[in-house]
Amino acid sequence: MTTPEPDFIDSPFRSPEDRLREKDQKREAVLLAAVRAFNARGFQAASLDEVAASLRISKPTIYRYLGNKEQVLLECITRGLELLQEAAAEAEREPGSGLTRLTHFLRRYAEINMDDFGRCVVRTDDNVLSEEGRAHFRALKRRIDQAMRDLVAAGVEDASIAPLDVRMTAFTLAGALNWPGQWYAAQGEQSAEALAATMVDVLVRGLAPRG
Amino acid sequence: MTTPEPDFIDSPFRSPEDRLREKDQKREAVLLAAVRAFNARGFQAASLDEVAASLRISKPTIYRYLGNKEQVLLECITRGLELLQEAAAEAEREPGSGLTRLTHFLRRYAEINMDDFGRCVVRTDDNVLSEEGRAHFRALKRRIDQAMRDLVAAGVEDASIAPLDVRMTAFTLAGALNWPGQWYAAQGEQSAEALAATMVDVLVRGLAPRG
Repeated sequence: MTTPEPDFIDSPFRSPEDRLREKDQKREAVLLAAVRAFNARGFQAASLDEVAASLRISKPTIYRYLGNKEQVLLECITRGLELLQEAAAEAEREPGSGLTRLTHFLRRYAEINMDDFGRCVVRTDDNVLSEEGRAHFRALKRRIDQAMRDLVAAGVEDASIAPLDVRMTAFTLAGALNWPGQWYAAQGEQSAEALAATMVDVLVRGLAPRG
Repeated sequence: MTTPEPDFIDSPFRSPEDRLREKDQKREAVLLAAVRAFNARGFQAASLDEVAASLRISKPTIYRYLGNKEQVLLECITRGLELLQEAAAEAEREPGSGLTRLTHFLRRYAEINMDDFGRCVVRTDDNVLSEEGRAHFRALKRRIDQAMRDLVAAGVEDASIAPLDVRMTAFTLAGALNWPGQWYAAQGEQSAEALAATMVDVLVRGLAPRG
């Protein structure tokens, strides 16, 4: 004979899974409040005190979830660079020519740069980081630069892109699409997606080989 | 009878002209030391103490020549924006199509952005300025943006540029050529001129109407 399943009442005690999920949600909320403060006022001017106050928590709670101010910033830029890395991996898996895949990547790249974590990547002057933090940041950025160059090179290889200098082309594209991260404010008349698409169109026109 | 001209000896006393020229030279030296400090460490991290120390002068001497730290910064960015304004005026006077004149402007724009004062314009987050300083900075920047748009519009008008959206095209070009100001270091393997020319080539390819 088996014990009948107990009729669970709506317990005020949280399960271990609930606690874990809640912890993740809280960590995310802290991270988002922090990245917005950094983007709005700059890393040096922004304080964890204001981030804590905006969430009605104490500064030690932030330390517990994410560490000190530099660690919080590193988490923000790592998150942004992970989004860019995912976009690159996705573009690489796309069917179509090198130019098609590059265009796909450029759109996502521009969109991410106009969103919270991407903006933080673009706006962070690595002089504010410790030597170790700077090395970490630069290594992650190099991977994105490499992905951009690989996509340009693939297009030059399959002749969907004119025989341009791969490094300079990648650099020019990245620069053009990093810039909106410096100034884009979501209150603008154009959505980030529309803006990304228009900018990428202007840039991509020049890449195709001439008839 | 006229008095014979006295045989001037090499006087250790400086003439009023000498004094004026020397004052200008000193002011320039202070400005250049300051802009380099701002570019190297960021406005907030840089101090007028270090600028003064690098010139073996006292901080009050800087105040006397240029004013307080914000006034020094404003002088640096005004200088950068004046250089851009001159480049725009020069390009407008050029003979040739709108695209030719735009290309001329873009090269100078990129070169200036990689030089001391242009870099300061690109790297200055206007959040560090007072409300008054910010209004001044933005008004000057708007004139450059307008000059860029006017040149794109002239090219669309004379059909040397494809019928692209003028505002977005100008913004994309400016973004691509602002970006090097964020990272370019004169020790690089490529000169600013060569880099500017290559980037502008990549960008301008896309502007001409398709055969």
